[in-house]
Amino acid sequence: MATQEWNWYVEYTSPHHGYMYAVRRHIYSGETPYQRVDLIDTFIFGRCLILDGRIQSAAVDEHIYHEALIHPALVLHRNPKRALVMGGGEGAVLRELCRHPGLEQVVMVDIDREVVELCRKHLPGWHGNCFDDPRVEVLHMDARRYLEDTKHRYDLIYSDLTEPEEEGPSRLLFTRQFFELVKNRLAPGGILTVQAGCFSIDLLEAHASIRKTLQQCFASVFSYHTYIPSFNANWGFLLASEHLDPLGVSAAEIDRRLDNLISPLKFYDGETHHGMFRVPKDIRSALAQDGKVIDDDEPLSLY
Amino acid sequence: MATQEWNWYVEYTSPHHGYMYAVRRHIYSGETPYQRVDLIDTFIFGRCLILDGRIQSAAVDEHIYHEALIHPALVLHRNPKRALVMGGGEGAVLRELCRHPGLEQVVMVDIDREVVELCRKHLPGWHGNCFDDPRVEVLHMDARRYLEDTKHRYDLIYSDLTEPEEEGPSRLLFTRQFFELVKNRLAPGGILTVQAGCFSIDLLEAHASIRKTLQQCFASVFSYHTYIPSFNANWGFLLASEHLDPLGVSAAEIDRRLDNLISPLKFYDGETHHGMFRVPKDIRSALAQDGKVIDDDEPLSLY
Amino acid sequence: MATQEWNWYVEYTSPHHGYMYAVRRHIYSGETPYQRVDLIDTFIFGRCLILDGRIQSAAVDEHIYHEALIHPALVLHRNPKRALVMGGGEGAVLRELCRHPGLEQVVMVDIDREVVELCRKHLPGWHGNCFDDPRVEVLHMDARRYLEDTKHRYDLIYSDLTEPEEEGPSRLLFTRQFFELVKNRLAPGGILTVQAGCFSIDLLEAHASIRKTLQQCFASVFSYHTYIPSFNANWGFLLASEHLDPLGVSAAEIDRRLDNLISPLKFYDGETHHGMFRVPKDIRSALAQDGKVIDDDEPLSLY
Amino acid sequence: MATQEWNWYVEYTSPHHGYMYAVRRHIYSGETPYQRVDLIDTFIFGRCLILDGRIQSAAVDEHIYHEALIHPALVLHRNPKRALVMGGGEGAVLRELCRHPGLEQVVMVDIDREVVELCRKHLPGWHGNCFDDPRVEVLHMDARRYLEDTKHRYDLIYSDLTEPEEEGPSRLLFTRQFFELVKNRLAPGGILTVQAGCFSIDLLEAHASIRKTLQQCFASVFSYHTYIPSFNANWGFLLASEHLDPLGVSAAEIDRRLDNLISPLKFYDGETHHGMFRVPKDIRSALAQDGKVIDDDEPLSLY
Repeated sequence: MATQEWNWYVEYTSPHHGYMYAVRRHIYSGETPYQRVDLIDTFIFGRCLILDGRIQSAAVDEHIYHEALIHPALVLHRNPKRALVMGGGEGAVLRELCRHPGLEQVVMVDIDREVVELCRKHLPGWHGNCFDDPRVEVLHMDARRYLEDTKHRYDLIYSDLTEPEEEGPSRLLFTRQFFELVKNRLAPGGILTVQAGCFSIDLLEAHASIRKTLQQCFASVFSYHTYIPSFNANWGFLLASEHLDPLGVSAAEIDRRLDNLISPLKFYDGETHHGMFRVPKDIRSALAQDGKVIDDDEPLSLY
Repeated sequence: MATQEWNWYVEYTSPHHGYMYAVRRHIYSGETPYQRVDLIDTFIFGRCLILDGRIQSAAVDEHIYHEALIHPALVLHRNPKRALVMGGGEGAVLRELCRHPGLEQVVMVDIDREVVELCRKHLPGWHGNCFDDPRVEVLHMDARRYLEDTKHRYDLIYSDLTEPEEEGPSRLLFTRQFFELVKNRLAPGGILTVQAGCFSIDLLEAHASIRKTLQQCFASVFSYHTYIPSFNANWGFLLASEHLDPLGVSAAEIDRRLDNLISPLKFYDGETHHGMFRVPKDIRSALAQDGKVIDDDEPLSLY
Repeated sequence: MATQEWNWYVEYTSPHHGYMYAVRRHIYSGETPYQRVDLIDTFIFGRCLILDGRIQSAAVDEHIYHEALIHPALVLHRNPKRALVMGGGEGAVLRELCRHPGLEQVVMVDIDREVVELCRKHLPGWHGNCFDDPRVEVLHMDARRYLEDTKHRYDLIYSDLTEPEEEGPSRLLFTRQFFELVKNRLAPGGILTVQAGCFSIDLLEAHASIRKTLQQCFASVFSYHTYIPSFNANWGFLLASEHLDPLGVSAAEIDRRLDNLISPLKFYDGETHHGMFRVPKDIRSALAQDGKVIDDDEPLSLY
Repeated sequence: MATQEWNWYVEYTSPHHGYMYAVRRHIYSGETPYQRVDLIDTFIFGRCLILDGRIQSAAVDEHIYHEALIHPALVLHRNPKRALVMGGGEGAVLRELCRHPGLEQVVMVDIDREVVELCRKHLPGWHGNCFDDPRVEVLHMDARRYLEDTKHRYDLIYSDLTEPEEEGPSRLLFTRQFFELVKNRLAPGGILTVQAGCFSIDLLEAHASIRKTLQQCFASVFSYHTYIPSFNANWGFLLASEHLDPLGVSAAEIDRRLDNLISPLKFYDGETHHGMFRVPKDIRSALAQDGKVIDDDEPLSLY
């Protein structure tokens, strides 16, 4: 395999391991008050949004990430009316939520106004103009402060946040105290979905800790997972609620429930769902043992 | 994420994309008549066998690859007595096969004697001394020639070959003509398992072509997949036979069938099986369309 | 030494060797009809102009390259009136030439209008507005065609061209036939200066060949050299004329001749001159043996 | 420029800049009590000795480094009898010193016995069996302690040490106090030569500080420099004594003094000498301003 490219992005997953991908075209680079933003076109992943050096989503597979994040909770809840998204600056979570005709209100709280504006401009395929859907409201503030202040209750809450770094904006959005707060803002029967990091036998610590922390607050916590090419990783998600049975709904029933979507999905359906919620034996064993409860006093820091 | 390492391996998956991993300790480098061999200890994957610059297996997750390759066919066949492995130099396929008390004969055909000897010396955890199991016979010759000459019929045949490169030794081991030959060496009810490359929406061409080629020869062909950390990829496998129903066996029944193994598995069980054989919707769509039949006259070349 | 950067440029000097430098800020990327252009700000070299993946000049040290290219011939000629520059898109050669009050006419022939315009906009420190100097004329055409057509004779001709690549625009500007043409456009006593590639014991082939080719056409050919940090290399230049004695002028005399410059130099003076024209013994030996005459029929291709 | 190599060494000169070179063959890796050692064969530099991730010398150009380090002081001293080398584990400094028939005693003090033994085994071209020359004595101890304890006086002392790192073995061998100690161990008319780091306008800090520190102790201090390909850098050296006039000896006289060497040199001669001791104007200006005296209380740390 020969290469002639000269402009590369390198994304380290540890001091000993990284990915590199060549830049086809450079779109934008800048600093917001919260993070460094790069928008580039790559050869194999298409356009990519990169925050603080880490790919957040890519044209080739953002549908996998966003369909996997949004639809399982929607399908399992049966009758959601109000959804809250924390993070989700690209707008693709809005696009997925807006496919559901039954949703009446979607609130997105993303602290970084500049990132949202850059995504509206440069990632039209991501948001599909859903920022203009009358059901959608976008707020630019700290998600924790929003939850502390709001009087609303939500049927579905989604955590679509960047991974917690020592000084990063999402540092206190993965702790036991925060998840207690989230729980109190869920309506009865409500479901929290959390994007929850790498999901593989060599990189399970963050997922295991977020899972263990959620288990302190919720009676029913399930991991699910799928491979995301542009993350170069198998990715994990967590569902948390008072009662859930993700494998208790047949693939056919899931397909039936998706029938009324305004537009069809590319990645998620009943068979996909049943694949995602089945976890290999070695990871099940590791999840039973690894991870520790994350506390405000000692937040998770991945890097 | 900061790094201080200075000795890196870079594995390109395309001229525009690669992985890099730091060397913790260098074990061996050399050239056999067939390929370049590197054995290194890495920080996150442990010891790695690298052929022609590509990781073949790694301590941290070779159990995933080898259990996924070997056990589904064994579980679905019910009563296999004779198994043939093409490739498999590390010996870990032998280790997995030898766990099955019912197997009476295991033949491994790997063209590269030097690689096998290096693995016996440097990868003891891989083969677990199964080269000495009395049921095992190892031959160093071209697998195609072996199949052309042999009078034996096998219940299980495994293709554990390096990916086909233009001048590589496995170039003619992924063609329609070759799979016809394999089919004729299977005993009635026999199953062929093929390690079949990347299995993700951005890198599906090779898998789709091998699948389409197998479908020319076998009535029943199934893809399954799992994430392999040291491949930095979701990996695909193919089962081919005259009649198969991988999802028709319950997870509980699979676990029961595995009960009589001589030693327990780490990765594969009933739940794992049911996850592996469920394929996301976007990949199912792509597999229905992509790929072309591979012919001796125009073999597949990945790079 | 730890690094946390994620956006790197890699410049290969061979398939086995390269340099990498992190991008501080991305300024511009695009394609002209002739080449790919990148303008970036780096951490250690400041702003860089990159053509086809190779740094052409950098803020931190373009004064070294351009003073070394321009002034030796000016100092040795004594009374130049008319200068021609082939290439030189950044405009820094104009800046250096315009320091000489005695020059009456400066013609620059650079084929790539877009590069020149990008440099005027993004590299003000390079050209110092010398494009507006009344003595300067800029033409956008092939330098060889210009020389074939022009009636003018020049006291000084400078070749400040990108390195010849197989399909690149400067492919036929380093051949014996071309240098004959140049010679015929020099006024009596005129001097040709050529930027002439790496000048080190491991990378001398291109310089040796250009030197040998010049020696076919000119009675007097001298190599000189200096280290250019942003090229990660010791760089060579060639002076060609009918009679030259670069070491026959004392350092003090050179300093005196530079006294009348409109503005002072940073890098070049008498002592610098005497260092540049002294060549280490091993390179002198290699130059006596290596290289071959470059012909229109078989142009030099560096990569 | 395309590359197909997969095993690379990366040497960072700053968090923002590095070099990379492919491994042709791996010879040895290990840890001594003092440093990490790698011996590799590269494609363009041949065999390389790498200490703590930094190339110390390479087959292709170790003659440049070692001739430049050793011979100027030998030529300027006229009648040296006793030489001391601090560091120099490869043995190539011994090889150069042993060419001088007039030298009667050569003492080498290198703290790392294992590195010396590895070099004797794997770098025969470097030492040329000079470890067995009857004039040579090798001691494995801290150079500072040796100087504190010894009763000997030396005509020539060479500092061929790795660059000072915070916890490295040469941390206290570049300070004012240490150079005072060295001065007291020089015989009358004795000369100290110090390998003194990068010598370019962007990387001059270390050289400038070592120079300024030497100037506190010695009446006469001169910088000289040459390009070393495998260092990817122009490299600086310092001569310190009570009276020196490096440019006061003509090139012809230097060549004459080298006539009596036991075997001829490849790099160094009179012309080379006169090039090396001439310093470009911008670096002369920077040396006049930059750098600070290095004290035991605050040693220089490059990384």
